[in-house]
Amino acid sequence: MNVVITGGAGFLGQRLTAALLQRGTLRAPSGAAEAIDQITLVDLVAAPASPDPRIASVAGDIADPSVLRQVIDAGTASVFHLAAIVSGMAEQEFDLGMRINLDASRALLEACRARGHRPRLVFASSVAVYGGDLPATVPDDAAVSPQSSYGTQKAMTELLISDYTRRGFVDGRVLRLPTISVRPGRPNAAASSFASGIIREPLNGEESVCPVDASTRVWIMSPRAAVEGFIVGHELSAEALGSRRVVNLPGLSVRVGEMVEALERAAGSAVVSKIRWERDRHLERIITSWPGALDATRGRALGFPTDESIDAIIGAYIATLDAPRSLHFPFEEEC
Amino acid sequence: MNVVITGGAGFLGQRLTAALLQRGTLRAPSGAAEAIDQITLVDLVAAPASPDPRIASVAGDIADPSVLRQVIDAGTASVFHLAAIVSGMAEQEFDLGMRINLDASRALLEACRARGHRPRLVFASSVAVYGGDLPATVPDDAAVSPQSSYGTQKAMTELLISDYTRRGFVDGRVLRLPTISVRPGRPNAAASSFASGIIREPLNGEESVCPVDASTRVWIMSPRAAVEGFIVGHELSAEALGSRRVVNLPGLSVRVGEMVEALERAAGSAVVSKIRWERDRHLERIITSWPGALDATRGRALGFPTDESIDAIIGAYIATLDAPRSLHFPFEEEC
Repeated sequence: MNVVITGGAGFLGQRLTAALLQRGTLRAPSGAAEAIDQITLVDLVAAPASPDPRIASVAGDIADPSVLRQVIDAGTASVFHLAAIVSGMAEQEFDLGMRINLDASRALLEACRARGHRPRLVFASSVAVYGGDLPATVPDDAAVSPQSSYGTQKAMTELLISDYTRRGFVDGRVLRLPTISVRPGRPNAAASSFASGIIREPLNGEESVCPVDASTRVWIMSPRAAVEGFIVGHELSAEALGSRRVVNLPGLSVRVGEMVEALERAAGSAVVSKIRWERDRHLERIITSWPGALDATRGRALGFPTDESIDAIIGAYIATLDAPRSLHFPFEEEC
Repeated sequence: MNVVITGGAGFLGQRLTAALLQRGTLRAPSGAAEAIDQITLVDLVAAPASPDPRIASVAGDIADPSVLRQVIDAGTASVFHLAAIVSGMAEQEFDLGMRINLDASRALLEACRARGHRPRLVFASSVAVYGGDLPATVPDDAAVSPQSSYGTQKAMTELLISDYTRRGFVDGRVLRLPTISVRPGRPNAAASSFASGIIREPLNGEESVCPVDASTRVWIMSPRAAVEGFIVGHELSAEALGSRRVVNLPGLSVRVGEMVEALERAAGSAVVSKIRWERDRHLERIITSWPGALDATRGRALGFPTDESIDAIIGAYIATLDAPRSLHFPFEEEC
């Protein structure tokens, strides 16, 4: 079976690729586990070269239907759609966000539909679909009310995937990801970038600005749990999902201050002193519009993994700093 | 001030036109009431000729941006966006539904954005955005979960309009219309067409098929209340709406059997005997996925009109049959 990963050169795409190569199999549309013959990584930039013969890399604009027709073929059993313009950039560059976060998603769905064999499609959505006046713990069936163009584009794509699934064009699975922390690499244009930056930069001896108050509650997930989540989401049977193809992944609800305390426990006060607290009203408005906690009972019942604690997340990140870099990760974060 | 009505040759578009001509003014973006200088009706077919010099008619494809650039100009203060492919047809003709219900809506928003003066935009959405396992009375903040492509396209457009409003590109107002009953004219491809047909055809001495059980609860509104609702939605201040630009209009919740009983009270048993009860599983699946009742407290508090009773709705329809036809309505229903 062949697998396509959009955003395949990005951080989560590379992690997922490594996990799939190691795993070796995925559930085919028939329901049976089959060997992965090929993983095609599609991204604006070519993914790093790999010695693994199962890896193919295509550099191109995923909003260009001809690029998608090239990578989605009769052998494509599964698609992981991770490519996105992140929240901060989609807010600054409205048309770019619409083009990649909405139009490319639709073009991808159309490329799948045109093939006619109903590939399985896992979509990385986001808690940014929620917003406005939210309760402390957002119920699983809460209405979406995005307060950013990024969240709007994700919510629109969720609707499209549900309809394409209902009509039998794809077998879609929409996973609403918490904020991923700790991402390696450099800060990016995501409004949530600080949630990695306040851990990563101080550990690297660099200053990091925290744009929100220490009392701000965030809903986070480690890269490891996210990648495991993509695979769990792929492997679930249609029966287990039922008619609702959108799942809130079970994140960890922590206050920013608790993240910093955990960093201090792991690395000491000198490291923590590198954090500069400087509220940014623009970023804060977006970040605090997201849920600080979600009722993820359904996600847990479906078997999605959850992180044990913020200490475990930070500990796992620190461990990667000491480990030799593998060929596949960590790379730069997605734009 | 200039007004644009998409779907302006359709039944509700023509009724709205007549109401606006009679009213003569609308609130301008400044908030002050201003005289309506021009109403441009855009539709696939030309609207019937009007002797009123304020009426302009443009026949064209509203998914074609050049058509929209022609009608949305620097003087366009208000847009009523009513054009749509109805539910049954959008389910049969997926690409056509996407093109008119989503792409044309987006092109319209882009045409408004390009002008840069933030016109007021009233959008006719639908309770078809709801679906699945719904409580007897759907709360105002329930999550959308469309079970049709029409509902999906309406829900996506709602999200777009909210984001375009948040960004200051338009001043959007999204009105979720109940099923309109009684529409004049002929049956159309809307799954809800029966809700008018079982009243209209028997009154015309013709047989009408009711595809759902008499116990099915429907959420309906008269054409008069819908047209008044468009104007109320337009006139509301941004402050009254707050950050939530989507309003569930206050419909009437009735069982199909109650509609038929009211028809019998108004027109006798011979008329009612023209109804043939013949369940259609395909139509029934779509119709029963819609809410039979909604909590419309917010809509009522905002001043949207509601119908008094099903008897009043049927009585008003019968009165139109006796009245001389005006120049502007009733016309054929929108496709």
